[in-house]
Amino acid sequence: MATLLVLYSPPADTAKFDAHYQNTHIPLARKMPGMRSFTVTSGQPRAFAGSAPYLVAQLQFDSMASLEAALASPEGQAAVGDLPNFAQAGVTVLAYETSGV
Amino acid sequence: MATLLVLYSPPADTAKFDAHYQNTHIPLARKMPGMRSFTVTSGQPRAFAGSAPYLVAQLQFDSMASLEAALASPEGQAAVGDLPNFAQAGVTVLAYETSGV
Repeated sequence: MATLLVLYSPPADTAKFDAHYQNTHIPLARKMPGMRSFTVTSGQPRAFAGSAPYLVAQLQFDSMASLEAALASPEGQAAVGDLPNFAQAGVTVLAYETSGV
Repeated sequence: MATLLVLYSPPADTAKFDAHYQNTHIPLARKMPGMRSFTVTSGQPRAFAGSAPYLVAQLQFDSMASLEAALASPEGQAAVGDLPNFAQAGVTVLAYETSGV
């Protein structure tokens, strides 16, 4: 299983961010091929250590190859290309494989 | 569902970090009550934007109340208290609830 984790820094205008994220970005991101699940935070994350992002999105794929193919697809490029439209405060985009312990 | 996400900054001595994490920290963290799953990254995460942590751990709980109770428990306090023993390079600890989109 491979994870694409997206951590958005707190935006200057949360209402504007929320509207764009819900109405434009989620519909774009949902079109990415091979995506097995897509979850976002409900309410603002808390930080026990470090700084808290405003929102965290987690997209799951079967493998890193599937994740990379999704990002490289036209749908993935459209979603990535939308980031500058609402994530001006900063965004961290991580990709990794996981295993249970 | 509530998530405890732990992002470890790249350590100065990865072999030392790995040994402590595998042999000491995982056994401590696994004792936390109410934990439903515990996954860690396989191999180093890649960053498409922002800076890459060395390791990401994700612990799932039924609810934020369950997550908070786990952290407050003796087992949770033992795991938190172990962080300074190996995560000197820095660690971000986030807690949040999620929903599918």
